[in-house]
Amino acid sequence: MQSDRIKFQSYKDKVITAQEAALFFKDKMTVGTSGFTKAGDSKAVLPAFAERAKFENIAITLITGASLGQTTDTDLANNNALYKRMPFQSDAALRKKINDGEILYIDQHLSETAEMLENKHLPKIDIAVIEATYIDENGNIIPTTSVGNSPTFAHLADKIIIEINTSIPLGFKGIHDVYISENYPNRQILNVTASNDRIGQDYIAIDSKKVVGIVFTEILDSPAQPTEIDVKTAAIAGHLLGFLENEITAGRLTNSLMPLQAGIGKVANAVMSGFAKSSFENLVMYSEVLQDSTFELIDSGKMNFASASSITVSENCYKKILANFDFYKDKMLLRPQTISNSAEVIRRLGVIAINTAIEFDIYGNVNSTHIAGTKMMNGIGGSGDFARNAYLSIFVTQSSSKEGNAVSHVLPMVSHVDHTEHDVDVLITEQGVADLRGLAPRERAKVIIENCVHPEYKEELSDYFNRSKLRGGHTPHLLEEAFKFHLRFLETGSMKKML
Amino acid sequence: MQSDRIKFQSYKDKVITAQEAALFFKDKMTVGTSGFTKAGDSKAVLPAFAERAKFENIAITLITGASLGQTTDTDLANNNALYKRMPFQSDAALRKKINDGEILYIDQHLSETAEMLENKHLPKIDIAVIEATYIDENGNIIPTTSVGNSPTFAHLADKIIIEINTSIPLGFKGIHDVYISENYPNRQILNVTASNDRIGQDYIAIDSKKVVGIVFTEILDSPAQPTEIDVKTAAIAGHLLGFLENEITAGRLTNSLMPLQAGIGKVANAVMSGFAKSSFENLVMYSEVLQDSTFELIDSGKMNFASASSITVSENCYKKILANFDFYKDKMLLRPQTISNSAEVIRRLGVIAINTAIEFDIYGNVNSTHIAGTKMMNGIGGSGDFARNAYLSIFVTQSSSKEGNAVSHVLPMVSHVDHTEHDVDVLITEQGVADLRGLAPRERAKVIIENCVHPEYKEELSDYFNRSKLRGGHTPHLLEEAFKFHLRFLETGSMKKML
Repeated sequence: MQSDRIKFQSYKDKVITAQEAALFFKDKMTVGTSGFTKAGDSKAVLPAFAERAKFENIAITLITGASLGQTTDTDLANNNALYKRMPFQSDAALRKKINDGEILYIDQHLSETAEMLENKHLPKIDIAVIEATYIDENGNIIPTTSVGNSPTFAHLADKIIIEINTSIPLGFKGIHDVYISENYPNRQILNVTASNDRIGQDYIAIDSKKVVGIVFTEILDSPAQPTEIDVKTAAIAGHLLGFLENEITAGRLTNSLMPLQAGIGKVANAVMSGFAKSSFENLVMYSEVLQDSTFELIDSGKMNFASASSITVSENCYKKILANFDFYKDKMLLRPQTISNSAEVIRRLGVIAINTAIEFDIYGNVNSTHIAGTKMMNGIGGSGDFARNAYLSIFVTQSSSKEGNAVSHVLPMVSHVDHTEHDVDVLITEQGVADLRGLAPRERAKVIIENCVHPEYKEELSDYFNRSKLRGGHTPHLLEEAFKFHLRFLETGSMKKML
Repeated sequence: MQSDRIKFQSYKDKVITAQEAALFFKDKMTVGTSGFTKAGDSKAVLPAFAERAKFENIAITLITGASLGQTTDTDLANNNALYKRMPFQSDAALRKKINDGEILYIDQHLSETAEMLENKHLPKIDIAVIEATYIDENGNIIPTTSVGNSPTFAHLADKIIIEINTSIPLGFKGIHDVYISENYPNRQILNVTASNDRIGQDYIAIDSKKVVGIVFTEILDSPAQPTEIDVKTAAIAGHLLGFLENEITAGRLTNSLMPLQAGIGKVANAVMSGFAKSSFENLVMYSEVLQDSTFELIDSGKMNFASASSITVSENCYKKILANFDFYKDKMLLRPQTISNSAEVIRRLGVIAINTAIEFDIYGNVNSTHIAGTKMMNGIGGSGDFARNAYLSIFVTQSSSKEGNAVSHVLPMVSHVDHTEHDVDVLITEQGVADLRGLAPRERAKVIIENCVHPEYKEELSDYFNRSKLRGGHTPHLLEEAFKFHLRFLETGSMKKML
C-alpha cells in the first residue's frame, strides 16, 4: 500500500507518525498548510500539533489556503496553539478567540497571500504541511481535493511534511494544474484564456532535500453541510435567474452566460442549483470552490467544465464523485488560489461573480465580514478577487433575518466595507433585484430601498435617505444616525424602531 | 495648414465650426469626449455646447477619460448642460452641483468605464468628441496629450466629431499605443510585460462614415498648477524614500525599485521629485499621468521610461517637452486608460503604487473621495486600480490640516471607504510610516497611532482604541463614537475636543 503511494525511492525511510512530525514545530514558527474550504487539509499533523500544544506553551502563525475542516481550528484555538492565523477561517471556537483579541487574524483576499509570501512581504515559511494523494517517481506531490497555497508553501518552506491520504484514489492525478509565477522582475503572462486551459504541471514540485517526514492518514475531508433550499433562498435564486434571462433578452448575454463564480453557503448554492432547472446551457465555472451544485449542473448536462481551487461537497456528493470519477475527471480542474482567483484571468474570462453579503447599504457598499462593524464572521475570502474584476459583480443576501425580522441586511451605512460602491453591479434579496449599473448614489438608494429592503424597514430607510438629502452631498448621510440600526441591535437585540 | 492636419481626402469637406458641431448634441444624449486629467480634452466643441446650453433647455450625460481642463466642466455645470457625469471630475462648480444633488455623478475606477461601455452595461455613446493632432491618410486619429477612453468612444459612438489641435506638433505621432480588447468571449491576453511594451497602433482607428464634423482649435491644454514642496510634503517624501531604502536593505527591492505609479497632487509630486535626489536609478513608471516630476526624473537620468494615459504638466514643463521632443519621445508612451490602469498589467509588472488619501482610519481603511462621508471631492480615479493590484500599495497624506490642525486625517473610522483594509500596505504622513504588511487590525491600530497621527490627536485616538478593545471584536470600534471627529468638525469646524 505505502509503496503505491511513495514512488520516490529515497523517501521510503521518511515515514513517521503525526506526533513525530508535530515535533518539528517550534514556538513562533510560521507554518503553511494545505487546505481550502475544508478540502485537502492536514488531518494528522495539525491535530497532533494541537494535541501537543495542550501540554506545552507553544504557538505558531498558521497560514492556510482557506478554512480547515475537522475540528482542527477549534482544537488549535482552544489549546492556545495559534499566535496568528491567516488568510481565512470559518471556525466558531477560533472566531471567538479572534474576536476576544486572543488570536491575531489577518483577513486577506485569497489571491494575495501567496503573492505576499513570494514577495517576502510576510514572514518566511518554516514548515509546510501538504496533503498528498501520492508522491510520484521524482518526489513530487500529487495533491488531493484542493491546491490552495500549497505550491507556494512547498516552494518557500525550509522543511516539508507530506501527509499522504490513502482514502483519495490514485486517479486524482491529472485534475490539478499547478503553476507558480516567476518572481519579479521575471513575472510572465498567466496564459489562461478559457476555464479549462492548463498552464502548469499536474503535481506540486518539491525540493526533496526539504522533506523531513511523511505521515499517512485515511481521514476523509469534512463534508460540506447539505443546504436546504428554503423559501427565501429560492426567491433569491429566482430573482437572479430572472435577471440573467433579462440580460439575454437585452442581447448582453447568450444562454451559455459567462464563466460563473459562486461563493460558499446556502444562498449561493441555492442559486447555482437553480441553474439546473434553467434554460441555460454549455455553462462553465471559473470559481474557487466546486460545490454540490457544480456536480448537479454537470450531471444535468448544463455545465461543461468547472475550474476552482478545491472540491468541497457533501458526503453523498463526494461518494458520487468517487464512484463516477472517470466521468467527472475531464470536466474539472483544481488550481492554486493565485490562479483561480487571479484578477488577470477573472477579467479576461469575464466571470459572473455571485457572492454573499452580510449586509449592504443604500448606496451599494457591501460588508462581507464583520458583525456590527467589529466581530469577524469568517473573512472576505475570494469575494473581492472576483467582485472587483468580474464582468458582472452580484451580491446576494436575505433582506432580513432572526425572529421577527430583528435584523435588516440593508442598512443606512454598512458597519464595515469589504466591497466598495465601485465594485458592486447588482444586489439581490428575496424582495427583488437592484441593478446599480450606470446609477449615481442617489439613484442607487431609490432602487435599493424600493427593490431589496424588507417591508418592515422600508419606511425608516426611506426616511433616513430623505432627511440625509436635505443636508446635501454626493452620498447623503446623517453621520450621527448612520449606525442607528446596528446600535439598536447591540442594545436591544433588534434593529427595529421601538414604538 | 489644414491639409497638413487632414491627410484623408474625403474628410476635407467635413470642417465645420465648433458651434455647428455642438448642434449635433440632442437633449438626453450620451456623449463621450477625450480628456484625461486636463490633457487632450475638447477645447472647442464642449465649450460651444456649454454656450448653447445657456439659451436652451438641453442636458447630456458626459463621459470622459477623467477631469477636463479650461473652464469646461464649470461652464457645463453652471449652464445646466449636464444630466450625468462620469467617471471623474475635479472642478469646483461641478463639484458643488454634484453635492447639491443637481448633477448626477458616477465615481468609477478609471479602468472600468470603457469595460462597462463595451459590455453594454452603460448606455450607448451617441457622439464622441476626440481631440486629434492630425488625421492620417486612412482617416484615423493621431491623439494629442492623452488617450483616455477615446478609442472606446470612437469604437462605440454613432457619430464622431474630431477636434484638430494645431498647437500640438505633428511629431506627436508615435507616442501613443492604442489597443482595444476584443469583446467577450474573444478577450485576449494584454501582452504588456514591460512598461515600454507596445501592443497596439499609434492611432485611434475610426470608421470614417461616422465622422460628422472636424473642428480646428489651437488652444493649449490647461497647465497643471506648479506645486510648492513645503515642510510637510518634504517630510512625507523623506519618509517614503527611507521606507524604500529599507526595502532595498532588506533585499526585497533593488535600487531600480519596481515600476512606479503616483497619483495627482502636491504630495505625490513632491514624493516623485524626491526620487531625483535619491540613489535610485534606472527607474521606470507605469502610471496614469505623466507629471512634471516624471520629466525631472528623466532629465536627471534617473528614469528610463514612463508609460501613462496622459501628459499633465505645468506650462514651463510643457514648453520644455515641446522644445526637446526628440529627446523625450522614445522615453514615454500614452495608452488607453483600460491598459494604463489594467489590473492584469499592474500585477504583472509589480507596480509600486503611491496614492493620496483624504483620510485613513486606525485599521488602515482609506477614504479618497468624500469629505465627512457625504461631499464628493474629485473621485477615486485610478487609485483603486493601482492599490488593489500593486506590488506595494502606499497611501500618503498629511496627518492634520487647516488652521490650528483643526482636521485630523487619521480617524477612528473613515467616513467613506474607497480602499479597504485588504488593499493597503503602507501609510505615510509627515509624522512617519506605518508598515501594515502582515499585521492584524489591532496591531495596525498601534502602529498607525504611534507613527502617523498628529500629536494633538494621538491621545484621543489611543483612548478610542483602548476603550473599543474593552468591547471586543476583531476590529474594535465604538459605533456610537466612530464618527465623533467628523461630527465635531461639522458642528464646530474643528475635529478637536472642546476643553
